[in-house]
Amino acid sequence: MVGEILAVGTELLLGQIVDTNSAYLSRRLAELGVDVYFKSCVGDNVRRVESTLQLALSRSDLVVVTGGLGPTDDDVTVAAVADVIGRKLVYSAQVDSDIVEYFRKTGRQPSDNNRKQAMVIGGCTLIRNQVGTAPGQIIEDAGKIIVLVPGVPREMTWMMENTVIPYLKQKIQSVGGAVIRSRILRTVGMGESALVVQIEDILSSQTNPTIAPYASDGLVDLRITAKAQDDETARQMIDRVAESIRSRLGGLIYGEDNETLAEVVGRLLLTKGETIALAESCTGGLLGKLITDVPGSSRYFLGGTVTYSNESKTKLLGVQPEILERHGAVSRQCAAAMALGVKRLFESSVSVSVTGLAGPDGGTATKPVGLVYAAVVCGGSLSIARLLLNGNRDQVRTRACVAILNLLRRVLTALP
Amino acid sequence: MVGEILAVGTELLLGQIVDTNSAYLSRRLAELGVDVYFKSCVGDNVRRVESTLQLALSRSDLVVVTGGLGPTDDDVTVAAVADVIGRKLVYSAQVDSDIVEYFRKTGRQPSDNNRKQAMVIGGCTLIRNQVGTAPGQIIEDAGKIIVLVPGVPREMTWMMENTVIPYLKQKIQSVGGAVIRSRILRTVGMGESALVVQIEDILSSQTNPTIAPYASDGLVDLRITAKAQDDETARQMIDRVAESIRSRLGGLIYGEDNETLAEVVGRLLLTKGETIALAESCTGGLLGKLITDVPGSSRYFLGGTVTYSNESKTKLLGVQPEILERHGAVSRQCAAAMALGVKRLFESSVSVSVTGLAGPDGGTATKPVGLVYAAVVCGGSLSIARLLLNGNRDQVRTRACVAILNLLRRVLTALP
Repeated sequence: MVGEILAVGTELLLGQIVDTNSAYLSRRLAELGVDVYFKSCVGDNVRRVESTLQLALSRSDLVVVTGGLGPTDDDVTVAAVADVIGRKLVYSAQVDSDIVEYFRKTGRQPSDNNRKQAMVIGGCTLIRNQVGTAPGQIIEDAGKIIVLVPGVPREMTWMMENTVIPYLKQKIQSVGGAVIRSRILRTVGMGESALVVQIEDILSSQTNPTIAPYASDGLVDLRITAKAQDDETARQMIDRVAESIRSRLGGLIYGEDNETLAEVVGRLLLTKGETIALAESCTGGLLGKLITDVPGSSRYFLGGTVTYSNESKTKLLGVQPEILERHGAVSRQCAAAMALGVKRLFESSVSVSVTGLAGPDGGTATKPVGLVYAAVVCGGSLSIARLLLNGNRDQVRTRACVAILNLLRRVLTALP
Repeated sequence: MVGEILAVGTELLLGQIVDTNSAYLSRRLAELGVDVYFKSCVGDNVRRVESTLQLALSRSDLVVVTGGLGPTDDDVTVAAVADVIGRKLVYSAQVDSDIVEYFRKTGRQPSDNNRKQAMVIGGCTLIRNQVGTAPGQIIEDAGKIIVLVPGVPREMTWMMENTVIPYLKQKIQSVGGAVIRSRILRTVGMGESALVVQIEDILSSQTNPTIAPYASDGLVDLRITAKAQDDETARQMIDRVAESIRSRLGGLIYGEDNETLAEVVGRLLLTKGETIALAESCTGGLLGKLITDVPGSSRYFLGGTVTYSNESKTKLLGVQPEILERHGAVSRQCAAAMALGVKRLFESSVSVSVTGLAGPDGGTATKPVGLVYAAVVCGGSLSIARLLLNGNRDQVRTRACVAILNLLRRVLTALP
């Protein structure tokens, strides 16, 4: 089954709201095995809703229309759909009483505008709205399926989960359709293009499952998507490809699906029974923020210091003034002294430090913006990394944290 | 000028990422006075990118294509565009050397895939990429304008702000189009609906300029948008409306346009000649991160501590064990002791503390998730705030920081 999504609403065209409905609908349709090749968005304009719907019906079996079902005059979806498929609007006593009841519950009276929502497309299957006033509608016409759901995310998802998806599942089964499943392998430590070269043969030999890389700030996700007759078969197809990629990339893969690097590091700290403290400079607290994004991080994260000034590096962490004078705050030596100092201060078993130049100012020929030193002290061992990062202040800080969390991951993984 | 947005990327069709680019592009084009009637999204498929682009060119003067410019084989945008307008791809030594330089900076070698990105559409105006490898392109063809920008939001917005928008402004001027200018009044401290009630009469009496509120995490922006024949007239129209809103909302307005609360606080610290130190618990470093997002923050930010454990609150900040035993870490008394302790530690003139329950676990009947105490010590004065915040862990932490920065703003503003 080929499906298509049409979002209706001028506020979407003006960018006043982000269209999260389309992402939700895409994901749910993909999971049903519906191939979605196109998504469109138009404003509250009858002519343009009609032309877009016509195009959609000409190339897809299923069109899910979200938005434009409200009570006001600029809600034109129902009229436009009726027009395109040449059907009349009919009065639904059911919907009318639902609307009256909905308002009664909150001690209010529906306006005539609200009552207008009781006019639905002739021959449609109604989707009663338990969380709002606009009813959903499913229309089968000339071998095509048109689904109308509200634009309000809560009402839309409620109707999809409770009525539309079960309806589509049964339709698809009846025509012996397939399911689509995907898994993400999350990698860190190698750029997208270099990574792709590593697995080029696997990528090119694959059509099902497909493998799609997606890069962001030093992380590269590999999305494996399989199409099969059932869940189990899809899972096995993904397992095979994932296995061959894992055997090629090994330690570059830090997690799967929505796992974050901080979650993986947190789990390693927990399972190895370690505690951690941070000494941050140029990241200003970002590293601590990322580590404490993880619920329950208090079980291994003792705390940290943000020593932005030289004085505070010396006073809190005991960084010798000679180090700052001879090597400067952005140096291998200062990073090591900061990590050792914060470990003493918090009496943690592991500690991390980061000091560098996030920019935009302060760079020199020998110490350019983007130069960052990080140190990890774990038990008796000290690991120091010298990073040279691209991008603006925000990117340098974000990428520094990614690199440090990865250094931490590697050190912790090596522990017995 | 009629414009249209085309987002390319299979990950969008699978709903694996939400298309925030389209919302940004819509907003910026609307501000330029470009009428956007359609947005489309297709996967990484040459044929479908081509058919969608053809349709877009048939009904719009401007098509902004985002995504599909990457180095891998499934990035097909450039090939598809060249095909539709019948142009050859040409090698750009400029782009090639930019790519080589981009990798050199980080001591890496570009792969052949990266070098592939040096093939651009003949006759295009290049947009050099300072934050990535994929170049942007502006193509004028048969009276239409096609703009190609990357799908990575940072690279896309950078190119739009620095090259594409200035280019479009000048194009629109040259055809004598009306200019659309907008200004954002940024408010903090009152919810959207309550705020709207304050200025209901101003909102309803306005059609040009229009006033649109956008709420996000404790902040409400009021975007004033005027349409006029020239900049100066638009500016004056905006000034008048801004004045009447300011006289109504007064201190709720903390800044304009892209000013952040942290920038405003930073400027206050600088002009009043103060220095600051932070004692964070539940925010885990986020407050420090926000303050150091501001370039040059080292002139007033001395540093901070993230004391996540009770022991560290006592050891680093001198919070008396009795306070933790009697009142707990999430208490007025602990917040005060933390702020006083960190001020001593960093010898700053101002200090801030935050301690609370970000959740999801750890809440009780008397101390629910979302309860946060914050303290500001400034000279001899101590201000304490008790916050009860809604939302998930991430929202509680973000909203806590917003509230604290606002408390800080009010305290600093009151200084002589």
